[in-house]
Amino acid sequence: MPSFTVFKGSKDGSIVQSETKKGELKGDQVLLKVTASGLCGTDMHYRNADMVLGHEGVGIVEETGPDTKVLKKGDRVGWGYEHDSCGHCEQCLRGNETYCPERAMYGMADLDQGSFAKGAVWREAFLFKIPDNLPDEAAAPLQCGGATVFNALHTYKTDPIETVGVIGVGGLGHLAIQFAAKMGCRVIVLSGSDSKKDEATRLGAHEFFAMKGAKEIKVSHQLNRLLVTTSALPEWDLIMPILAPGATIHPLSVDDGNFSIPNMPLILNGITIQGSVVASRHVHRSMLEFAALHNIQPVVEKFPMTKEGIEEGMAKLEKGGMRFRGVFVV
Amino acid sequence: MPSFTVFKGSKDGSIVQSETKKGELKGDQVLLKVTASGLCGTDMHYRNADMVLGHEGVGIVEETGPDTKVLKKGDRVGWGYEHDSCGHCEQCLRGNETYCPERAMYGMADLDQGSFAKGAVWREAFLFKIPDNLPDEAAAPLQCGGATVFNALHTYKTDPIETVGVIGVGGLGHLAIQFAAKMGCRVIVLSGSDSKKDEATRLGAHEFFAMKGAKEIKVSHQLNRLLVTTSALPEWDLIMPILAPGATIHPLSVDDGNFSIPNMPLILNGITIQGSVVASRHVHRSMLEFAALHNIQPVVEKFPMTKEGIEEGMAKLEKGGMRFRGVFVV
Repeated sequence: MPSFTVFKGSKDGSIVQSETKKGELKGDQVLLKVTASGLCGTDMHYRNADMVLGHEGVGIVEETGPDTKVLKKGDRVGWGYEHDSCGHCEQCLRGNETYCPERAMYGMADLDQGSFAKGAVWREAFLFKIPDNLPDEAAAPLQCGGATVFNALHTYKTDPIETVGVIGVGGLGHLAIQFAAKMGCRVIVLSGSDSKKDEATRLGAHEFFAMKGAKEIKVSHQLNRLLVTTSALPEWDLIMPILAPGATIHPLSVDDGNFSIPNMPLILNGITIQGSVVASRHVHRSMLEFAALHNIQPVVEKFPMTKEGIEEGMAKLEKGGMRFRGVFVV
Repeated sequence: MPSFTVFKGSKDGSIVQSETKKGELKGDQVLLKVTASGLCGTDMHYRNADMVLGHEGVGIVEETGPDTKVLKKGDRVGWGYEHDSCGHCEQCLRGNETYCPERAMYGMADLDQGSFAKGAVWREAFLFKIPDNLPDEAAAPLQCGGATVFNALHTYKTDPIETVGVIGVGGLGHLAIQFAAKMGCRVIVLSGSDSKKDEATRLGAHEFFAMKGAKEIKVSHQLNRLLVTTSALPEWDLIMPILAPGATIHPLSVDDGNFSIPNMPLILNGITIQGSVVASRHVHRSMLEFAALHNIQPVVEKFPMTKEGIEEGMAKLEKGGMRFRGVFVV
């Protein structure tokens, strides 16, 4: 494999097939044969950039660099949004390497690599072994979507006795429902219409509310935590009355613009707004173990890992028709 | 004392002297002779309401109701924004009674009582003994202003190794500087101009930055925590680059409108926005003990507890000329 096929964004938004040269593996680099990649909203943001797309990868180890310690040829691994960090700053030393100032993340570094590809070279230190009972196409969306929602719940100490609200039943939301339900929480899903009610219930939601046109949201318990997985912010006048005192709101959608919320209810009810991005490695590992133990798997639609397959998947996601995560398979 | 003098807001914003009937003390009610009251920004909000103003009171116990347990005639006590709570909801049972859904707070209940007054009747359960080394006029502004900033720092677990930023050197800000400095933190003050630099430094600030016209803020260390004590939100483009990963922002100003902040830096740096209001009683007590131990006192300007004195103090606060907390003394 002196080079491997990758799929890049381009100015006009069409997908361009290209080749990335492998070169000699250095340090703890590992060459992977990609088998599956999830399609995330962030890929849509970079669609017009001259870079390899995709950051929810799963693949098989083909070759290992001179300083690798753990992985062997044939191992099945995944990777996500972060590829590297400095290893010596305070955030790295605390195990919060997703906040390392020199972090290498999707869209900012290693633009000749991605998971919309047939091969990839990454540092062993940022690869995760996939538990045996998670098939490739289920493991892929966990690498970013799963990591993002699990991190919000786990790192910010969700208590099993909490009532957790999830706004939006899409790539993130349908995983958040499962994780929160398996953590023991009461899960209340807020969606636009009733169209995803059955699916949300099957995934573990205890209550479901269609917000469109509603003047008031009726829930059995106020929410201790609310995961906002939609790119549009909710109507706070509907939401604030159903938040419990001291509730935490997690904005999880990667979008420009401002996060804006009424000041007085924020203060008077001791609300926390908690920003977070994907998951540090120790959290990512726990996420995979938790998913494997509880058989938490995304609901996926599969497309071939080709220019046409990727364009088809992206078109479907853009139209809002994906149920619930697109996966490209080699 | 069959009745006592109180000072109320009115439609045209002038202060109206009135009388509140005492009646027979019930339960754990206590009659106080008011000696001092701080003037807080929230009093300005209620200036046009037909209610007794003031919620940073200090006074002497004159008479105790049949169910009082601790206080005796002659005791010196303070009280703040909250007068009562239900005592049986989850928030009350957790010691978070400031978030009790049935809380009685300033502007919402007991409108015939306040600290712009010569007397007051309150529940013993919501009165705080004042440590001996705090004079009345110093203790009064601690009941709301001090409680608000100490609560943000203490309840949300400020670590002495943190760098704490304070925006605004006013009633709240000048107390925040002192509390954070005495907690061992590096304190960096952000103000409009240099006019309050000497005072801020004397109060414990290690660094001071005048933001007006600045294109970039230069600080020795990124901020782990930022207390926003101004009613206007800061220019986030200046602030976000000086926040450490995982920093917490505390909006402390009681203002309508939205709290609005750029979404991507919030997410990518794992920022927390933490709403909070005054302090629950166990926190309030710790605040008074901490202030007494470290001789933390507000810088005050005194005015007489009369219609004219109150109007003069409010006019000065409105013009932004108060350094740093007005206190009305009987």
